[in-house]
Amino acid sequence: MLSLESIQGPADLRALSPEQAGLLAPRIRQLLVDTVTRTGGHLGPNLGVVELSIALHRVFESPRDRILWDTGHQAYVHKILTGRAGALATLRQAGGLSGYPSRKESEHDVIENSHASTVLSWADGLARAQGIQGVVDRAVVAVIGDGALTGGMAWEALNNIGAAADRPVIIVLNDNTRSYAPTIGAFADHLALLRGPGAPKALFESLGLAYLGPVDGHDITSLEAALRRAAGLGRPVLVHCVTEKGRGHTPAEQDEMDRCHAVRGRSTGKASGDGSRSWTSVFGGELAELGASRPDIVAITAAMLAPTGLGEFARRYPDRTIDVGIAEQHAVTAAAGLALGGMHPVVALYATFLNRAFDQLLLDTALHRAPVTFVLDRAGVTGDDGASHNGMWDMSLLQLVPGLRLAAPRDAATLRRALREAVAVHDGPTAVRFPKGSTGGDIPAVGTIAGIDVLRRGGGEDVLIVSLGAMAGTCLEVADRLTRHGFGVTVVDPRWVKPVAPALVELGLNHRLVATVEDNGRAGGAGSAIAQALSDAGAATPVRTFGIPQHFLEHGTRADLLAGAGLSAQHLARALAEILFGREIEELEHQPLVAVEQHSG
Amino acid sequence: MLSLESIQGPADLRALSPEQAGLLAPRIRQLLVDTVTRTGGHLGPNLGVVELSIALHRVFESPRDRILWDTGHQAYVHKILTGRAGALATLRQAGGLSGYPSRKESEHDVIENSHASTVLSWADGLARAQGIQGVVDRAVVAVIGDGALTGGMAWEALNNIGAAADRPVIIVLNDNTRSYAPTIGAFADHLALLRGPGAPKALFESLGLAYLGPVDGHDITSLEAALRRAAGLGRPVLVHCVTEKGRGHTPAEQDEMDRCHAVRGRSTGKASGDGSRSWTSVFGGELAELGASRPDIVAITAAMLAPTGLGEFARRYPDRTIDVGIAEQHAVTAAAGLALGGMHPVVALYATFLNRAFDQLLLDTALHRAPVTFVLDRAGVTGDDGASHNGMWDMSLLQLVPGLRLAAPRDAATLRRALREAVAVHDGPTAVRFPKGSTGGDIPAVGTIAGIDVLRRGGGEDVLIVSLGAMAGTCLEVADRLTRHGFGVTVVDPRWVKPVAPALVELGLNHRLVATVEDNGRAGGAGSAIAQALSDAGAATPVRTFGIPQHFLEHGTRADLLAGAGLSAQHLARALAEILFGREIEELEHQPLVAVEQHSG
Repeated sequence: MLSLESIQGPADLRALSPEQAGLLAPRIRQLLVDTVTRTGGHLGPNLGVVELSIALHRVFESPRDRILWDTGHQAYVHKILTGRAGALATLRQAGGLSGYPSRKESEHDVIENSHASTVLSWADGLARAQGIQGVVDRAVVAVIGDGALTGGMAWEALNNIGAAADRPVIIVLNDNTRSYAPTIGAFADHLALLRGPGAPKALFESLGLAYLGPVDGHDITSLEAALRRAAGLGRPVLVHCVTEKGRGHTPAEQDEMDRCHAVRGRSTGKASGDGSRSWTSVFGGELAELGASRPDIVAITAAMLAPTGLGEFARRYPDRTIDVGIAEQHAVTAAAGLALGGMHPVVALYATFLNRAFDQLLLDTALHRAPVTFVLDRAGVTGDDGASHNGMWDMSLLQLVPGLRLAAPRDAATLRRALREAVAVHDGPTAVRFPKGSTGGDIPAVGTIAGIDVLRRGGGEDVLIVSLGAMAGTCLEVADRLTRHGFGVTVVDPRWVKPVAPALVELGLNHRLVATVEDNGRAGGAGSAIAQALSDAGAATPVRTFGIPQHFLEHGTRADLLAGAGLSAQHLARALAEILFGREIEELEHQPLVAVEQHSG
Repeated sequence: MLSLESIQGPADLRALSPEQAGLLAPRIRQLLVDTVTRTGGHLGPNLGVVELSIALHRVFESPRDRILWDTGHQAYVHKILTGRAGALATLRQAGGLSGYPSRKESEHDVIENSHASTVLSWADGLARAQGIQGVVDRAVVAVIGDGALTGGMAWEALNNIGAAADRPVIIVLNDNTRSYAPTIGAFADHLALLRGPGAPKALFESLGLAYLGPVDGHDITSLEAALRRAAGLGRPVLVHCVTEKGRGHTPAEQDEMDRCHAVRGRSTGKASGDGSRSWTSVFGGELAELGASRPDIVAITAAMLAPTGLGEFARRYPDRTIDVGIAEQHAVTAAAGLALGGMHPVVALYATFLNRAFDQLLLDTALHRAPVTFVLDRAGVTGDDGASHNGMWDMSLLQLVPGLRLAAPRDAATLRRALREAVAVHDGPTAVRFPKGSTGGDIPAVGTIAGIDVLRRGGGEDVLIVSLGAMAGTCLEVADRLTRHGFGVTVVDPRWVKPVAPALVELGLNHRLVATVEDNGRAGGAGSAIAQALSDAGAATPVRTFGIPQHFLEHGTRADLLAGAGLSAQHLARALAEILFGREIEELEHQPLVAVEQHSG
């Protein structure tokens, strides 16, 4: 019997008879289910493209032909077929296979895209390069979902691809009627028509594309025939493949919510153990409560209703819940329009996806002082999704936006409070950001100074630690370590990161050293803003800004990545002690008393 | 005879007979030509929408009905018809009429958008708000050009608008076949078909919109009939109006390049007088030269070929020149694709428009280490276009992008050099940014230190002024002023702003004070990065970062706006002297000698 591991690459796959190729599909599904339910990862999307991936690698010759995957989490089957079946068990673990295409892993992984809707632009660029160079024997094939086609840049690309009849790009539309949730909008309605018999094919043809389909995306023979025909056309073409997300796995097929889009691994998805809830659900619960007393609140999602915690709000207030599709730009400007019309929109996004709509945030909400609240989930380090999904940019990006107020709550209680405060702001945009995972227990303030929470009062004025967002627990541990060595450490949490509170500047003036700690890129981050505010006040107090070095992070666990970035309590305590002692020390825990004396002197 | 100034608002316009209304058109054109050729501003677009603006204000009742203009520079006629004819002479001048809709000016100006392709999202948001509130008697009318429809967010919005048959939005497509230049792409080809007889109307109908047209956009009676019919449909509808950009003004009609899209005012558009060229033309000339020896260089524009200086390159290398439409996201990712295919793309944008493609810059170019060069024109303060067109964000935004290298040349010579260096980089993205206007004379270095240009060697070690980009002339003048008062001032220009040169940090350590000067927002800007680098090195030297306060700037001249931001030589010298003296001083020029003695001691 043919084993999956005997498929060392696409050539092995092409050597199979159609019947043999067909036998691979159930084995691949079994491997996916067995592995991904253990490691965690994107299950439903990959179960849906098993036959499509087989057909693509049989018709086209990767890597000579370029097979490009939009939203790369649908590339697990592609990985299996390109010699990585044996490594699938290491998926999304440090040192293991990435959950997205990775050029380090394989010559068959051309691009590492993970944000949706980019692949047609990549394909247009590659095809243009080949056109300029006179290359004619390498097909450019782009696989994109119906959900991703609701993203504007996909349409920008279609406008370019369709205009050049002599520059062939093969677009494979993986139409499973969903992104996370069912795809919304006029375009989805149109695709539903196309899936039926005799529908007009004018939409794509109007844009200069040949249209082939609809094709049964689980019939390898039909798929191969359509792809071969597309390759022979020598012009831009869209092959409409109808697939079923979660195909062949009963729990996915019965999951009306998202077809097991992403599953938590048995080995990695453990509950926190302290009984705390996820940041997402704390936000979702509080927003649903606020919806009762605030009929002006509207919730907006870009195709991620449940993942961003809007499920409860949607159930209670369906008329005030809007899914705009994978369309962050539209989400933000439509929110500004809703605000202009008297509503208070709450736009719930993963932090990394706000990068898609910076211009709209700046000009359509902030310049118009539109009261829109952005809720940024998965801020900071998310970890196992890798570089593209870490939310390490938002606290820097939002610093640039005039008039925007930004909160970074440290626990469930401050998240609820920040959200209530944010939706009470009527003269401009607000944002609330928090990480992935569990909130942990609440961290109460021991006092407040002009609105700033004091988490720990020090016995001296050596160090002021400014804890930002979810770093509070770590900062308190740093304080413990430093206190044991005789330093006076104060820990405060401003809760509202932007604008910088005047009281924070005053506090800084009264300490020998200010340290800011954030799970955000160091460049232009919250710490940088605090340092600038102190400098503007003429302070001589040095400010050390601790955060994520401005590099792309590999995939791994949040804790490991934070430690790697020097953001563990141990690293931070050692770094601060070195600054205070004025020299490098071996290990703070073993620091002899003389050092403390030296400090006291 | 009916005078334009007698039209105090739309009600006066609606009181006119169709014949009287028709007589207004030539008078409005005359006023536009007379005024805008003097003040400068957007002429061609407004000449094209004279009849359309009249018809809109006769059919709809602003401000009850919402008339929204995409790319607001086409709203001059709207301003004339809403009581501002008499003020048109103050267009784009400080304290005068804005070149875009302005809510401060009029209740008829609903949104102040100026970046293209946003208006359909605004309309969707407003219509949704009215739907939630049960408002049924206020029409939402969005005017958008064919060029702007190539922008992705317009398609995101169409997908939403077309999906709700019971939420009417009236889309007025102002089809003049151009943005600056002729509109490109499959969509433009399709519109050309629609303008002919009997073409299939399936594109818009496929997206759930009713389609009315094509309508002669210079026939008020036809326009009014179509708009009334659209208003009566009670469902989303697109009215396809065919207009002629520059209509009725011979120089515009004969201008094949851009139909007098924007004209320089006779009073404000004077040449610099020092014989220097514009930054744009220096870049364009150098790129054309580079194109000869570098067959891998491809130039990319987002619908602004001539304005970004690519004209000469396009003439010499048409096959390596790409206009992607108003589609910055696609431009950036397609550039990454071209780079993957072995080319070196140069993406020429106005700095403000890069904000549209931050996510693509970050993940598609930087994460992929794609050798793409971004050339950012109109960086810093542009002035008369107002808040949305100032390029005061790029030096902050680009700090966030791992691996990207950023140059800010100070003159024509360093611009040429930076461009040559940028296209020689093969392992990641580069950017070169420069302002609007004339380069002025070259400012030679008096020496270099590890790649950093020294512009002035001081007689002591009081102040290190780090001049960034086009602020060099100002910084030298600051040095003159401070030197006259006994301070030792060194002025350096790192040329490459990111990464921060190690030698810059070392220089900083040897001075009492470091001052950074940039025409970019202070938050997270180049100065902030330099301050962080010095802090990381353990420096005690205070760093003061001078730049634009993080606010939206009103329109005005570049010089006035820089002075208002404290970036004139006089302001900067005074501020630095105060810091060095440790107290406020009245006026540096009158500072008594005792202060210098105090300093010397």
